[in-house]
Amino acid sequence: MKAKRSERLVDMTHYLLEHPFDIISLTYFAELYQAAKSSISEDLNIIKERFVRLGIGDLETFVGATGGVRYIPTVDSEQQHRLIAELVEELDGSERLLPGGFVYLSDVLGQPKWLNHIGRVIASRYMDEDVDTVMTVATSGIPIAQSVARFLNVPFTIVTRDPKVTEGSTVSVNYVSGSDHTRVEKMELAKRSLAEGSKVVVVDDFVRSGGTIEGMRALLDEFNATLIGTTVVVENIVGKSSVSANYRSLIQISDVDEQQNTIQVKLGDFFDA
Amino acid sequence: MKAKRSERLVDMTHYLLEHPFDIISLTYFAELYQAAKSSISEDLNIIKERFVRLGIGDLETFVGATGGVRYIPTVDSEQQHRLIAELVEELDGSERLLPGGFVYLSDVLGQPKWLNHIGRVIASRYMDEDVDTVMTVATSGIPIAQSVARFLNVPFTIVTRDPKVTEGSTVSVNYVSGSDHTRVEKMELAKRSLAEGSKVVVVDDFVRSGGTIEGMRALLDEFNATLIGTTVVVENIVGKSSVSANYRSLIQISDVDEQQNTIQVKLGDFFDA
Repeated sequence: MKAKRSERLVDMTHYLLEHPFDIISLTYFAELYQAAKSSISEDLNIIKERFVRLGIGDLETFVGATGGVRYIPTVDSEQQHRLIAELVEELDGSERLLPGGFVYLSDVLGQPKWLNHIGRVIASRYMDEDVDTVMTVATSGIPIAQSVARFLNVPFTIVTRDPKVTEGSTVSVNYVSGSDHTRVEKMELAKRSLAEGSKVVVVDDFVRSGGTIEGMRALLDEFNATLIGTTVVVENIVGKSSVSANYRSLIQISDVDEQQNTIQVKLGDFFDA
Repeated sequence: MKAKRSERLVDMTHYLLEHPFDIISLTYFAELYQAAKSSISEDLNIIKERFVRLGIGDLETFVGATGGVRYIPTVDSEQQHRLIAELVEELDGSERLLPGGFVYLSDVLGQPKWLNHIGRVIASRYMDEDVDTVMTVATSGIPIAQSVARFLNVPFTIVTRDPKVTEGSTVSVNYVSGSDHTRVEKMELAKRSLAEGSKVVVVDDFVRSGGTIEGMRALLDEFNATLIGTTVVVENIVGKSSVSANYRSLIQISDVDEQQNTIQVKLGDFFDA
């Protein structure tokens, strides 16, 4: 298919955005558009320059006979702050407090826009880590895991407290939950769903006591998997004396008003050095 | 920000892809790039022509003083067939049979590529319907709902059999499940998560008896919501005398071999007239 530069730029921009991390050879584009590799190379330089300027990532180029390119959808620190600051603004002061210090987030975590922001930012942290899988616990962590996995272009895996027959055989661990650390629960992961020795990023939507995070760590051990890192979207730090070293949070709930049913939020420690 | 056509094309392609269904005025782009509206209009014509050719959707243009454009990410029937045929090939004959006639799909439904295909195709069917929300039942339907919602650019809503405290108040219905229609179960939906009178598309990953689909229909009645349509990814039609009129399926399991633990699949009735 013969195409002009303007046409190639539209096509290639779309193709690269849809195939993060895939290495695409110059030859592929050159043959597809019946263009010289040098022209394709110039196209890619334009796209790279714009992607960097838009803050939506970078194009990594490989030179030589096997010359090619791949799109790394990272966002810079400034953009990350901006995206999450928007979410802080959305949550701050809103009437979201639920009994037991929980916070209603389902509306936010059911919106493509916020999931896009969150997925992009969390994925940016792990882009150099050669991640195999993003793991979370059902139900409310799933949209986060799916969105992060999309930007990392890897599968995601769902741990459940209530496995269905459709999962096949599972491995289970017990973990301690509740703010007073007294309740013992069980979580399970389908044997088929995580390869031994995988490199895993763990995500979740909301953390108070950190019990489910610990449970997922224990489960990873059972699969001889490596934990690359853990990020939660919202952490309730009210009444906590120190910050946990086991995970990072995008947003922290710094104050609650049970009378008014409102919360105060701020940027989490995800952005700390 | 002054920009050349080649630069604008990269930027605008990205912007449109990221903002499906949003109406963007010509003025917005003209001011952003300090370009004449006529130039922006030509840019958009190029992008439109390429999107149609790539089969990734269309640009709808609005003329006049409030002239603008919006990206409709529909895919044509031929592309839809191609995308789902790829999935049929992936599933066909594979060792996925689980006890009770269920089928293991978690690996497929945990991969961004397949979710992208499925979301795009299902969303295409409902693009003209002014959908408010995509609804599904936890757990395994969630990735489907999220992906369809992303292409429709609407929120998604999760019905659960086991509501958490983080959902707040809920409305519940009983439904009949199991292939012999003897088990009565309960599903619930958070009151906050669906506005009265919403127009809803229901999706799910796997259907055998159709009980959960009926349950979700009953739940929609409780919210005075309108059901626009129901699509499931995989339907087990083995031993069924007639096809249900209540939903469409992308893929049908037409035969199972319990000895070999394998299944045979074909395109579902989603593609029928």
